[in-house]
Amino acid sequence: MDSNLRNEIYTKGLQWIKQAGENIRTKINNPLVVDTKSNPNDLVTTMDRETESFFVTKIKETYPEHAIVGEEGYGDKLSSMDGTVWVIDPIDGTMNFVHQKRNFAISVGIYQDGIGEIGFIYDVMSDILYHAKRNEGAYKDNVKLPSLKTDTNITEAIIAMNHFWLCPNKLVDEEVMQHFVRTIRGTRVYGSAALEFAFAAEGIINGYISMGLSPWDIAAGIIIFNEVGGVTTTIDGTPINMLEKNTILACNLVLQDEILSTVKEGRKSDAI
Amino acid sequence: MDSNLRNEIYTKGLQWIKQAGENIRTKINNPLVVDTKSNPNDLVTTMDRETESFFVTKIKETYPEHAIVGEEGYGDKLSSMDGTVWVIDPIDGTMNFVHQKRNFAISVGIYQDGIGEIGFIYDVMSDILYHAKRNEGAYKDNVKLPSLKTDTNITEAIIAMNHFWLCPNKLVDEEVMQHFVRTIRGTRVYGSAALEFAFAAEGIINGYISMGLSPWDIAAGIIIFNEVGGVTTTIDGTPINMLEKNTILACNLVLQDEILSTVKEGRKSDAI
Repeated sequence: MDSNLRNEIYTKGLQWIKQAGENIRTKINNPLVVDTKSNPNDLVTTMDRETESFFVTKIKETYPEHAIVGEEGYGDKLSSMDGTVWVIDPIDGTMNFVHQKRNFAISVGIYQDGIGEIGFIYDVMSDILYHAKRNEGAYKDNVKLPSLKTDTNITEAIIAMNHFWLCPNKLVDEEVMQHFVRTIRGTRVYGSAALEFAFAAEGIINGYISMGLSPWDIAAGIIIFNEVGGVTTTIDGTPINMLEKNTILACNLVLQDEILSTVKEGRKSDAI
Repeated sequence: MDSNLRNEIYTKGLQWIKQAGENIRTKINNPLVVDTKSNPNDLVTTMDRETESFFVTKIKETYPEHAIVGEEGYGDKLSSMDGTVWVIDPIDGTMNFVHQKRNFAISVGIYQDGIGEIGFIYDVMSDILYHAKRNEGAYKDNVKLPSLKTDTNITEAIIAMNHFWLCPNKLVDEEVMQHFVRTIRGTRVYGSAALEFAFAAEGIINGYISMGLSPWDIAAGIIIFNEVGGVTTTIDGTPINMLEKNTILACNLVLQDEILSTVKEGRKSDAI
């Protein structure tokens, strides 16, 4: 992507994300209509829809040739990542949005021919923006995030992961993962994939492992995390496919080796 | 406790906790000496010790007749809760303090003859104080916290609990707890018992269940949570003993019935 064009898109994206955030903050105490999607805990609200719709309108007005993938379906149905693609989660962490009225984020990743160029993760209620352009470093507001430490010992790592890893599941033997949580220093669960990526980029957690995430959950996070030296792959160490769900591992290169080999030990052969 | 005396103690406690927090914020980026205690993940720093020592000095100067129980051992060895007892965790969530430089709290509970009179939980880096006096309601800074909803359905509950509940353990059959996490709406892990109590009091999580907490982890939380209608017992539904470790459940009355009966189903008979 041409550098001038990228800067222009970055500026527009930044403006829209701040505007969308301001709109959410203004309405945060309004009564909510909460629907469910794939399961009773997969929540969606009018605010998710309104926010995605806002982005789609702005992008289509300004860049009619750009494609959009959004959680709530106002975007396009894509069969490839060719061209410029905006991958948007209007409210990542909708359960937090509904129950906590904080700890959720707007996540926007902008890709050019499959390569992540610009990432924004906006912690709306804290008014904190994590952002990055490819090869230009990652920032928390105006502060450049340092590269991840590379001397992390697995026994001193804090890993974000939900509890389902320790329940019988189709992907990995739960006993291997039970052993894993006893090996590491601690676990955290914050309830927003985007924020979990942002926290990993900030180094306040050392990794994130999560089942079945959609492209919009991770699109911005991968770009931002990459800029501090973080790597994101599937739990088998293969590249992420931005057109499908992925079960992901995001951490530094040292932990990646150790965690991938743990997962491999417990990996179920009939799993996707 | 006499109301005037209680107000006086409250004012002193408030002043000291803010002073201690300011001191921590000033030094948050100083190099840390991190030691371990009961296990390699049970961390303690000079800042934990300095903060507890500050409280002990202030209390002993001002109220020489008061007793003090503190995590780092600068207080007294108590065999009863008679008289006025300050129960102090200078930094609750030391792992967060070390790894995240945020998401930790100073926790101070003040008891009179075993009855919780005053509770403070100070989220130091966010400069947010949760506080309560018995029978006068709980506050987040200057905002009175509403009573907990009583119509919570277990299937819509967010429960803070760590991952060890789902690993083989001495207390409860892990399969029962695995089923439990599939029943509720979501789990969270924040890494500070005091903040988990504060969040439960605020209603952003619906309950908290935790193994082996020390008195200083819960002393303030119980008082604050009680003021919004929350109940805290052991996982067997028995009263908390403020002189020992307790495995606790904190939630509203409706969820308490359901969660206690789940735990009972999986409770191991040889457990403490």
